[in-house]
Amino acid sequence: MQDSSARLLIRCEDQPGIVAAVSNFFYHHGANITDLDQHCSDPQGGTFFMRLEFQTPDLDMSGPLLEKNFGQAVAKPFAMQWQLHYAAKKKKMAIMVSKFEHALMELLWRHAQGELDADITMVISNHPDMRQATERFGIPFYEIPVQKDNKEQAEQEALKLLEGVDLVVLARYMQILSANFINHFPEKIINIHHSFLPAFRGANPYQQAYDKGVKLIGATAHYVTPELDMGPIIEQGVKRITHRQSKDSLKETGQHLERQVLARAVICHLQDRVLVDGCKTLVF
Amino acid sequence: MQDSSARLLIRCEDQPGIVAAVSNFFYHHGANITDLDQHCSDPQGGTFFMRLEFQTPDLDMSGPLLEKNFGQAVAKPFAMQWQLHYAAKKKKMAIMVSKFEHALMELLWRHAQGELDADITMVISNHPDMRQATERFGIPFYEIPVQKDNKEQAEQEALKLLEGVDLVVLARYMQILSANFINHFPEKIINIHHSFLPAFRGANPYQQAYDKGVKLIGATAHYVTPELDMGPIIEQGVKRITHRQSKDSLKETGQHLERQVLARAVICHLQDRVLVDGCKTLVF
Amino acid sequence: MQDSSARLLIRCEDQPGIVAAVSNFFYHHGANITDLDQHCSDPQGGTFFMRLEFQTPDLDMSGPLLEKNFGQAVAKPFAMQWQLHYAAKKKKMAIMVSKFEHALMELLWRHAQGELDADITMVISNHPDMRQATERFGIPFYEIPVQKDNKEQAEQEALKLLEGVDLVVLARYMQILSANFINHFPEKIINIHHSFLPAFRGANPYQQAYDKGVKLIGATAHYVTPELDMGPIIEQGVKRITHRQSKDSLKETGQHLERQVLARAVICHLQDRVLVDGCKTLVF
Amino acid sequence: MQDSSARLLIRCEDQPGIVAAVSNFFYHHGANITDLDQHCSDPQGGTFFMRLEFQTPDLDMSGPLLEKNFGQAVAKPFAMQWQLHYAAKKKKMAIMVSKFEHALMELLWRHAQGELDADITMVISNHPDMRQATERFGIPFYEIPVQKDNKEQAEQEALKLLEGVDLVVLARYMQILSANFINHFPEKIINIHHSFLPAFRGANPYQQAYDKGVKLIGATAHYVTPELDMGPIIEQGVKRITHRQSKDSLKETGQHLERQVLARAVICHLQDRVLVDGCKTLVF
Repeated sequence: MQDSSARLLIRCEDQPGIVAAVSNFFYHHGANITDLDQHCSDPQGGTFFMRLEFQTPDLDMSGPLLEKNFGQAVAKPFAMQWQLHYAAKKKKMAIMVSKFEHALMELLWRHAQGELDADITMVISNHPDMRQATERFGIPFYEIPVQKDNKEQAEQEALKLLEGVDLVVLARYMQILSANFINHFPEKIINIHHSFLPAFRGANPYQQAYDKGVKLIGATAHYVTPELDMGPIIEQGVKRITHRQSKDSLKETGQHLERQVLARAVICHLQDRVLVDGCKTLVF
Repeated sequence: MQDSSARLLIRCEDQPGIVAAVSNFFYHHGANITDLDQHCSDPQGGTFFMRLEFQTPDLDMSGPLLEKNFGQAVAKPFAMQWQLHYAAKKKKMAIMVSKFEHALMELLWRHAQGELDADITMVISNHPDMRQATERFGIPFYEIPVQKDNKEQAEQEALKLLEGVDLVVLARYMQILSANFINHFPEKIINIHHSFLPAFRGANPYQQAYDKGVKLIGATAHYVTPELDMGPIIEQGVKRITHRQSKDSLKETGQHLERQVLARAVICHLQDRVLVDGCKTLVF
Repeated sequence: MQDSSARLLIRCEDQPGIVAAVSNFFYHHGANITDLDQHCSDPQGGTFFMRLEFQTPDLDMSGPLLEKNFGQAVAKPFAMQWQLHYAAKKKKMAIMVSKFEHALMELLWRHAQGELDADITMVISNHPDMRQATERFGIPFYEIPVQKDNKEQAEQEALKLLEGVDLVVLARYMQILSANFINHFPEKIINIHHSFLPAFRGANPYQQAYDKGVKLIGATAHYVTPELDMGPIIEQGVKRITHRQSKDSLKETGQHLERQVLARAVICHLQDRVLVDGCKTLVF
Repeated sequence: MQDSSARLLIRCEDQPGIVAAVSNFFYHHGANITDLDQHCSDPQGGTFFMRLEFQTPDLDMSGPLLEKNFGQAVAKPFAMQWQLHYAAKKKKMAIMVSKFEHALMELLWRHAQGELDADITMVISNHPDMRQATERFGIPFYEIPVQKDNKEQAEQEALKLLEGVDLVVLARYMQILSANFINHFPEKIINIHHSFLPAFRGANPYQQAYDKGVKLIGATAHYVTPELDMGPIIEQGVKRITHRQSKDSLKETGQHLERQVLARAVICHLQDRVLVDGCKTLVF
């Protein structure tokens, strides 16, 4: 991912001429298109989605001006919803975690390796356990304990810290967030659920999978919406298990899967590859 | 799989000395053990499962006598449930199908290639469509139409045909079988469900998967029990799909998966590799 | 795949304005773009590749005229290599096979199910074995025996039959084709090799894999070039094997893999999704 | 894995009565067999392999005495090669690494999580880079620089440190070890090679894979023998790649695969599940 690249995401009613209009606009302003992906949800009356990556060095105007012009010349006539992201402007990402280390560690380690196009600005936890593991990577750690009677207050405290954050990753955060909290970050909270959703929603999916005797266990990364475990799925993975595995062994297998699936989903989001289509996603 | 091999399946309470008793017995009667697999469901007070494969040419007595002696000398003291199968005595297998060709074809074709250790003695369908495809392989085809008001009678007709059959494979048979029918074949009816169970039970799982936006679709082969889609799972598989795929394309992907998963499950059953443990299976 | 769709494949030096020029051209002639994929082999001085799918019903001119105009107005200035395929004009496909049934059967069966956008016009074999299996599907079968001293003559005979054919699929054809033969069908012969190339080139890859003790076996579908097993790879797959499997069992596992990998590669080719980039392919 | 368990590994000529003799011996000395796996390389005149896991609490004699008796009463008559490992006596494991962090981190992290049944007693490197990452986990780090003219001396230094070590893991150690060094640790050095061996042996396999245009990249964990990259394979994995991936992205994908494949191989070895059969392995 080069620092000079930018990505445009578009969603609108399908109609002829969109690709031509968009590619013309960028061509005439000196933007070299290096990647273009589009999809239409239905050939008849569907929704049009596009992701376009272009290089900015030869632009004939500033970014803000380009955006203003694009809005008037292209987006408005086609009634587009659109976003423009510059790779040079890294997203601010926060991680929320409880006591499990695996998903957090994978993200911090990949970030340290330069694999995540983001600044991880903080880790928030309802437990103190992950402080050392976090601060070792030079990242601020905030403990916000959550009890039955201070849930709202705890969320308010978190919201204050999270101001200006572009992405919140729930790396096995074991508290259910309120609709109010969630609505502050539409399509900007990613959760890892430790099952192949929609199988085994809710609590203790490994126990559920063990009891059911499935031959594969799964993990699902999804955007968080107010309805528990029902947000748009970004990425899923499975691993084969056998009857020889105990519940603990199954959990171990599952956790290795969780951290990979979550990391892949976060990377896709950070590269602006995920577009939400109702209760589903497109991953370009 | 050699014709001179036999397989012993054992299930009993776990206790010391089982392996020694069994292996001694077979050794002293001239049976060469070529494969032995065991599992205990729980180190404390669990159930013991064993699959043992041995060669019969040097046995010092006939099969029936061996079985009688084993029953008295080994099985009784340990209170075992057990079965002994001879590879030379092929299982009789029937296939029930409705209108979809893929799963039936895969089984008939693999059978013709010599991959299934079974005699396929008949195909039963509630529709006439698969007659030619079946008879082409030299296998008898019986059409038993099922309407709302003749369900019981149709099942009776099928049961009559199925007398003496060791395995019934539902290769996308689109009728729900009664508990009475199912109880004639305990752990002897294998169904292919076109989803990753327990997700998407019931009707039209591809539509359900499409609407939910999962990133992988699955197929599940399981023994049939009276509760719909809830029998012990034998084998599962998944394939990655993308947002580019239409419902029809997703169904196509799924059907290729179904036929492979079903064939693998049937092969495991025919090789006496599947042991049922309550609502789960062990596949040795 | 709708009958009214057409696909344009482009390869040229990367330079600004290609997407704009192409999408403009099609927009102004009434072609609705329903899919567009592009790739550049290198951000600096690389090769540009594009696949574009559009709908033809509202075109303002005939196909031949559109092609002529596109050639002059767009392709020439950018020095493009390009092809335009109409879904309504099905490709003519021939299959060459020796004695193994699995890959041939998979293709004939999928074709009968409507999964291959092609007319299978013939099956050619150096053995008589597959005649019945082929003719059952209503497809002409030609036996052209190949001996040491008639290789060239046999190829001439085959070439005569293959005149006008758009794709030749080697579904385990066990003769090495001459460079002369191959040069008649550049990027139009697909072979299935029964290993994960470039491991185990040449004869008897299953034996090689067995002797080496690999934990996964593979299959590779590739375009045929004069250098044996070295053509551009279109698709690959692997399956896990265990030490319990005999050489025969390993071969069985492999053959199921072969037929799937070959079918996927053929489908990609028929949908004009494969572009060759030197000794590699892009699969859009 | 319980601390009271022990594992017996056996290799001998196949012959009748082995299972009976072994299971009898352990039964009569109060050892409860909790797992038993066997394999014969060939039904006719093959080699017999067995892994047996038993619980020690009710043994009627000490471990050393049991071993002595087993040697005389069972192993000698059958001319067995055998090893007995007690879970309570953890293996001593050393890691050798150069500059890449991913494989080392995965092992240290899994060890900290309690997933590796071993004491990691040291990390040896020819570079200083990994000192901090290692010592953070409380594990001693030794730097032994290797230049052209001190290779032998460096190996001698390493051998001295490695005295008494049960397993040496090469977590991307970029020096070729001498036959002399390797012969100190027969079947006790595990290397991770960053390709699907035997494809892409030698240097820079990612470049090789990129140039070849394979659709899957692989990683291979194997025991080290004097012939480079040719030792018995323990575990392999692959991941799908696309033409969109740059060489760097391909390397990134590969490194995530490497660390998983290596960890799985090390875990199998530590649980005494790997038996070497010539140039191949059996993994029970």
